[in-house]
Amino acid sequence: MLDKGRISTLEWDGEFLYIIDQTKLPVELVIEKQTSIEQGFDSIKQLKVRGAPAIGVAAAYLLLIGIRSYIDKPKKEFLDILSKKADYLDSSRPTAVNLGYALKRMLSCSSKSSSETSAEIYKELEQEAIKIHKEDEFICKSIGEYGSTLLKDDMGVITHCNAGSLAVSGLGTALAPIYIAHDNGIKVRVFADETRPLLQGARLTAFELFNAGVDVTLICDNMAAFVMSKGLVDIAIVGCDRVAANGDTANKIGTMGLAILCKHFSIPLYIACPSTTFDFNTKTGEDIIIEEREASEVINFGERQTAPSDIKVRNPAFDVTPNDLIEGFITEHGIIHSPFDQNLKNIFYKK
Amino acid sequence: MLDKGRISTLEWDGEFLYIIDQTKLPVELVIEKQTSIEQGFDSIKQLKVRGAPAIGVAAAYLLLIGIRSYIDKPKKEFLDILSKKADYLDSSRPTAVNLGYALKRMLSCSSKSSSETSAEIYKELEQEAIKIHKEDEFICKSIGEYGSTLLKDDMGVITHCNAGSLAVSGLGTALAPIYIAHDNGIKVRVFADETRPLLQGARLTAFELFNAGVDVTLICDNMAAFVMSKGLVDIAIVGCDRVAANGDTANKIGTMGLAILCKHFSIPLYIACPSTTFDFNTKTGEDIIIEEREASEVINFGERQTAPSDIKVRNPAFDVTPNDLIEGFITEHGIIHSPFDQNLKNIFYKK
Repeated sequence: MLDKGRISTLEWDGEFLYIIDQTKLPVELVIEKQTSIEQGFDSIKQLKVRGAPAIGVAAAYLLLIGIRSYIDKPKKEFLDILSKKADYLDSSRPTAVNLGYALKRMLSCSSKSSSETSAEIYKELEQEAIKIHKEDEFICKSIGEYGSTLLKDDMGVITHCNAGSLAVSGLGTALAPIYIAHDNGIKVRVFADETRPLLQGARLTAFELFNAGVDVTLICDNMAAFVMSKGLVDIAIVGCDRVAANGDTANKIGTMGLAILCKHFSIPLYIACPSTTFDFNTKTGEDIIIEEREASEVINFGERQTAPSDIKVRNPAFDVTPNDLIEGFITEHGIIHSPFDQNLKNIFYKK
Repeated sequence: MLDKGRISTLEWDGEFLYIIDQTKLPVELVIEKQTSIEQGFDSIKQLKVRGAPAIGVAAAYLLLIGIRSYIDKPKKEFLDILSKKADYLDSSRPTAVNLGYALKRMLSCSSKSSSETSAEIYKELEQEAIKIHKEDEFICKSIGEYGSTLLKDDMGVITHCNAGSLAVSGLGTALAPIYIAHDNGIKVRVFADETRPLLQGARLTAFELFNAGVDVTLICDNMAAFVMSKGLVDIAIVGCDRVAANGDTANKIGTMGLAILCKHFSIPLYIACPSTTFDFNTKTGEDIIIEEREASEVINFGERQTAPSDIKVRNPAFDVTPNDLIEGFITEHGIIHSPFDQNLKNIFYKK
């Protein structure tokens, strides 16, 4: 799963799914075989596999694992079970739209199928899952190519959380422009926010960029304003979990704060994401459900307790960046600028 | 050192200084006896004792410990040694102004002394150190009383780092208004930023407010924008380490970012500090030296490694909040509003 210093976060061997257990990084590189849908559900829940696009691809493969033992059942029964298993996987994490999207594609594939037997439908579903995976890789490359046009030698780029190879199959979303620029000999300086409470920026982004030979500097989240005030940051690029029809964007907690700092320092903030992240059924950011996670993530770090154990805590996993703080969306169809309500529709309704 | 659920961070028994080892909080309450100036220097350096005012008071007592064995020496030799020991202590941390202020007061006390013997001067110095300590407690109470006039029932208050009882003798600076309001039956809701990398907000502020029965919620630094966007924060109060003549303010890293968020959400930000924190020899924030600490603080947490061990890191301990992001300074002489260059002078030159 390590290729030219780059990391492939998911692999399917025709029977089982292999994931990098991201909770163990950067100290250990543990590849974990997923042999049941329940194990996969827990892996998503526990953030062993994470990043909105990667969750989508993983879910498609996990659905295969979950229904394989039913391929001798009659078609109707098979499709009923498939639908229930998809609902089950969909409940693992509420904020990311890609999870639901991938599962819907799988269900749509099966309902459109003209095959008579469950075994034949299973084969079509496997092809669909592989297609979702390959498309994801292609989309990342396109995002990287469009995004890299924004980068020039010696530019400072800040990013938050991890929207790289580990979050997505392929080059990632927010990190794809950096990888493509790096391949083209453009030397950018990247600042990676560590991203409390789970430190995906430190553990994952810093790890994968460092591994790939990119100039990366790790900072605590609360140092972003400092490096910006020193003129060290020219552009911010982050990924996202869901974009509403008006461009309001849900991403890892801290993104909104970063966006406000960018506005203050006149630094453009771009959201890099596949078109599947746009959810036109969600009108504005106010309609996005924000997952609130356990207090223990904030009160402890690893085995060490950092605050009184019965203290009140807020631990939202995401926040919503209002559209007016966003310079543009880097998608596989190009870079989309404001007014977003109009321009997002123009691009996606044309497809 | 625990009184009515409040914590006294420093105690002098006439011979030795006792400090709470703040690096062990909140898991262990360890009181450490300081028996030599070198031990005390290390305690300041390692942040066992921290918070600008507390460092000043501790340094005054540590100076006594450092010179006690020289009280049989001739006056001139004693004063020379005193001056060298003061320089030594002053080098323990570069940003806080109170350290230098307390040491200068001690030196000024000795140079003005008409006593003939070193032993007599020592006694005067001890009285001076105790006076600095008592003044500090009185100042905190005044800051608390002025600051509490800004607080009303059910207001949300956000604070960063620790400027409470642990940082200062007495009630603290930023937390003093909260303690006084609490005593007066005003129920405020406090949000404590955890304050990476050393988590003084989680370990110390959350700990001491919780201990005192104040309604406190712990958040990660990158969640401040989220709670502000939900309308949960009405005022921000932080301490500081040095204020330049124009009002630019050095405080714990992350304060500037918080100040920018406050501006965005129209939340007033107040700096609570004793008048000794104003440094009229420093014209603007650009002249303030920012201590950059070791990378290991960011790469590891406790015993756990969180990023590749040889990754590049920035770790500034402080940042400088520009004066235009500050609503006012809560001091023992009252609340000072802008224009700061004029109003700070008006108050302090009149004294």
